[in-house]
Amino acid sequence: MAKVGFIGLGTMGGPMAQRLLDAGHEVTGYNRTRARAEWLAHLGVELADSPRAVAEASEVTLAMLRDTQALHDVAEGPDGVLAGLGPGKVFADMSTVSPEASRALSARVAETGARMLDAPVSGSQVTLLAGRLSIMVGGERDVFERVKPILEAIGPTVNYVGENGLAVTMKVATNLSLPVQVLAFCESILLAEKSGIARDTAIEVLLNSVVASPALQYRIPLIVDPPEEPLFDVHMMQKDLKLALEMGESLGVPLPTTALSNQWLTAARGFGVGDRDFAALYEVLAGLAG
Amino acid sequence: MAKVGFIGLGTMGGPMAQRLLDAGHEVTGYNRTRARAEWLAHLGVELADSPRAVAEASEVTLAMLRDTQALHDVAEGPDGVLAGLGPGKVFADMSTVSPEASRALSARVAETGARMLDAPVSGSQVTLLAGRLSIMVGGERDVFERVKPILEAIGPTVNYVGENGLAVTMKVATNLSLPVQVLAFCESILLAEKSGIARDTAIEVLLNSVVASPALQYRIPLIVDPPEEPLFDVHMMQKDLKLALEMGESLGVPLPTTALSNQWLTAARGFGVGDRDFAALYEVLAGLAG
Amino acid sequence: MAKVGFIGLGTMGGPMAQRLLDAGHEVTGYNRTRARAEWLAHLGVELADSPRAVAEASEVTLAMLRDTQALHDVAEGPDGVLAGLGPGKVFADMSTVSPEASRALSARVAETGARMLDAPVSGSQVTLLAGRLSIMVGGERDVFERVKPILEAIGPTVNYVGENGLAVTMKVATNLSLPVQVLAFCESILLAEKSGIARDTAIEVLLNSVVASPALQYRIPLIVDPPEEPLFDVHMMQKDLKLALEMGESLGVPLPTTALSNQWLTAARGFGVGDRDFAALYEVLAGLAG
Amino acid sequence: MAKVGFIGLGTMGGPMAQRLLDAGHEVTGYNRTRARAEWLAHLGVELADSPRAVAEASEVTLAMLRDTQALHDVAEGPDGVLAGLGPGKVFADMSTVSPEASRALSARVAETGARMLDAPVSGSQVTLLAGRLSIMVGGERDVFERVKPILEAIGPTVNYVGENGLAVTMKVATNLSLPVQVLAFCESILLAEKSGIARDTAIEVLLNSVVASPALQYRIPLIVDPPEEPLFDVHMMQKDLKLALEMGESLGVPLPTTALSNQWLTAARGFGVGDRDFAALYEVLAGLAG
Repeated sequence: MAKVGFIGLGTMGGPMAQRLLDAGHEVTGYNRTRARAEWLAHLGVELADSPRAVAEASEVTLAMLRDTQALHDVAEGPDGVLAGLGPGKVFADMSTVSPEASRALSARVAETGARMLDAPVSGSQVTLLAGRLSIMVGGERDVFERVKPILEAIGPTVNYVGENGLAVTMKVATNLSLPVQVLAFCESILLAEKSGIARDTAIEVLLNSVVASPALQYRIPLIVDPPEEPLFDVHMMQKDLKLALEMGESLGVPLPTTALSNQWLTAARGFGVGDRDFAALYEVLAGLAG
Repeated sequence: MAKVGFIGLGTMGGPMAQRLLDAGHEVTGYNRTRARAEWLAHLGVELADSPRAVAEASEVTLAMLRDTQALHDVAEGPDGVLAGLGPGKVFADMSTVSPEASRALSARVAETGARMLDAPVSGSQVTLLAGRLSIMVGGERDVFERVKPILEAIGPTVNYVGENGLAVTMKVATNLSLPVQVLAFCESILLAEKSGIARDTAIEVLLNSVVASPALQYRIPLIVDPPEEPLFDVHMMQKDLKLALEMGESLGVPLPTTALSNQWLTAARGFGVGDRDFAALYEVLAGLAG
Repeated sequence: MAKVGFIGLGTMGGPMAQRLLDAGHEVTGYNRTRARAEWLAHLGVELADSPRAVAEASEVTLAMLRDTQALHDVAEGPDGVLAGLGPGKVFADMSTVSPEASRALSARVAETGARMLDAPVSGSQVTLLAGRLSIMVGGERDVFERVKPILEAIGPTVNYVGENGLAVTMKVATNLSLPVQVLAFCESILLAEKSGIARDTAIEVLLNSVVASPALQYRIPLIVDPPEEPLFDVHMMQKDLKLALEMGESLGVPLPTTALSNQWLTAARGFGVGDRDFAALYEVLAGLAG
Repeated sequence: MAKVGFIGLGTMGGPMAQRLLDAGHEVTGYNRTRARAEWLAHLGVELADSPRAVAEASEVTLAMLRDTQALHDVAEGPDGVLAGLGPGKVFADMSTVSPEASRALSARVAETGARMLDAPVSGSQVTLLAGRLSIMVGGERDVFERVKPILEAIGPTVNYVGENGLAVTMKVATNLSLPVQVLAFCESILLAEKSGIARDTAIEVLLNSVVASPALQYRIPLIVDPPEEPLFDVHMMQKDLKLALEMGESLGVPLPTTALSNQWLTAARGFGVGDRDFAALYEVLAGLAG
């Protein structure tokens, strides 16, 4: 078992740290709002005062942060992760950031003598709690092999994708299916409703069908039961799609379904549901159906 | 246990009849090419000489046929199913036909004193053999309740959708996600490939992700390993989409992703892969990627 | 100068007959509602009692009717055009009907010993009155050459396209640009408006630009000033697009912009503006803009 | 008549300067490659040694440059336009640059005591030579009124759009129709061809129809006769669309046809025709047609 650090103990990071504890690892953690991580202290996580302290205390430091800015904030400065890294250590970032930002940080990490992996996940808290998370990893292969057992305690599925930055690239490429699949389901639900089938029945049948991906299993019910806090709002979904569309533009890959659903997400903002979970695409299409 | 008839003992119908046998039902079957159903005779299915004979021998007669024309062929004429039906009997058609054709036949069945259900399935032979098929059912609710245990032996998931014809409507509405999801996956795979990730790796990661529906699980591998016989070719996929698009037109429901993928399927035909499984959408998009 | 017949003396047919008179032709006309054609009688058109009488009195009979059904009504029966045609005569149909219907009628005409041309136009009454109409013609080339001067009096532009039915095919292919161009202009107008440019200014600049086709010149002002009677309503526009989409499907030609705008026209119906001129696409897009 | 300066005497700027001469203005000009402007010296243009010298000699200085970078190059530095401007002078930039860049430069110009207008045009050299150019103008209204007669000598159509930057905004919004209209025409041409109509005939009929905008009049013939030098290549077209798409994203305006044609332009690059005039969209669609 290893000394593992974990920075960012929120909705995703908290339960991840718990799974590491359950697997027998010694975990040092850090959360900007310490109070929200106290429950983990009770379970045995050592809470440190700075990202630097976490990195100093750990062989492998993981991070799960909101976005590129948050990653920058914990990495830089006298109390940042970089200040606590050194030869033999590994920093594995599980956040979804841009491939460029990830590659730039991995170069900074290498300057300290440590090594970095990008290790974003596919799935939400639902997936994580169900023990069905999938982790994609970019970086040097031997570093990957060393950290793999730790990530498997979180996952369980772990796939090596290639060099630094390619895992976040793969994550961006994967996520484009999210709004596309939701939009297609909205079309199906509305066809059913307008034919006289109750919406709940239509949704139940669709979720029992072979086109119901795990992501649809947890998102489509939000159409009927919109959550107070969006799992992933329209703006965030578009931020991800923008990364994919820019990638397509620069690599010369046409992305017809991605571009289409991006425009419908823009329509969702115009329609006034931009702050809602992007399952609100249903509202837009329903607003246009006879 | 019941006396169950089964007409159409091919790729889907054969294993369905076998599951009925396994559940303890007494099964009488009919297949146009009798030789292809001999294996079922060895297992205990009574092979009859005509659809009519099947209906005469059974309380509930199921059918699983290729299309509307094939359904017409077994239903009509002196040896057809209609000639063998009568009061107290049920005919449940599991084929994917147009809602109009299904409703028209259910009226003919009612004239014999029997009742009809439309009971199409979501999934392929893979889904069926894995015991994960989902069946949607249209017709009178009490008839549905009576036949439900028999369908559960095939399914196991069985959902009541509404009156006659609504289950095939729901099936048409469900199927539109098939090409949309495949097209979006092709975009993801190409983004990954052009970024330097191996195609096999990209596919493995995608199939481990939360956007991997069961339908994608069995179809996406066909991109790398095209089957000799398509599971579902481009033409057949477009026939289904056409039903959905016509429904959208007449009900006033805009179907942006459906219309988009339909055009890419047309492009697939123009590209010379119309006779291939529609996973060949990958070829078209790859042909346009830099 | 020739003896020319004209059946259907409405919005388009009336001014066409007038142009024939102005060119010195001797014109016999027929309109179902005779009262609406009286103004032409005052100008010198001989009004006949039936389509048959028109055909009997004329060397070349033209028709401009609403749709396939209206064409059928004037062609068939004891008082129909077919009954009045014979060797040496020509029937030129300027209506927009399906290529199949046009080809079928040309075969019926040939049985009488006469010859038929399909001669649909590009443009509206505005175009016609401005003397800028373009006519495309299908049929035998020598028949075309004979009738060309008569059509030029209406046009003035006349293009020979090929055998019977190909001119209406060309018309269907041409018309798909109508809603596509309008939809793109709506995007431009909304971008301008949301940037702080007055809508009227945006429209004026757009109509002065190189992307302003004649069709946009007369349709875009309808966004600001919706007409009581639509020039061409959403339903009619979709009827034309449907012909184009079916043609694309059967010929294997992908029609991305056509399919897209067809879905937005469906959305317009759902949005409650289906009975308006299809310039109402603006309302739909504006309803979705922030 | 006024003392007018002109910077950038290429394909567009050269003939523009000539029109100013023809209108009786006293013109001082500058071109980076002086040799390419010698023909104008013979006609009476005074060629200066730097943008600064042009601005010093003129009441109103116009510029027509390739892009934002080229504008920056002539504006900045000891020999730049800014160094030659001062109270009472006007700088009118006719280039198509980003609204942000235009607004930023207008602030710099204001610091010198001079005033700036953004004055982009709709049309190509063909339009200019035919005397049918349309100019949209942003800036202070009284400055616009002062410069209007000079711009009308180039145009002749001149429209005031609003404050600084709004004219280039309007230009970006206008240009999105270019690839949309071309793509729709490609669909029409292919439908016609596959129906048996010769491509040349189809193009002629389309260009005679009411959907033939001036921009299509000069671009569609390039399908048959690709020019050695593209009028406007795929990359440049996408640069403009990118500005429009970003504007739509930030203003919350869905741009369905723009997003669609942008993906087809990406496909054109993947298809290997990215360096060709964007009329090459035809090649892509034809490559996918049966």
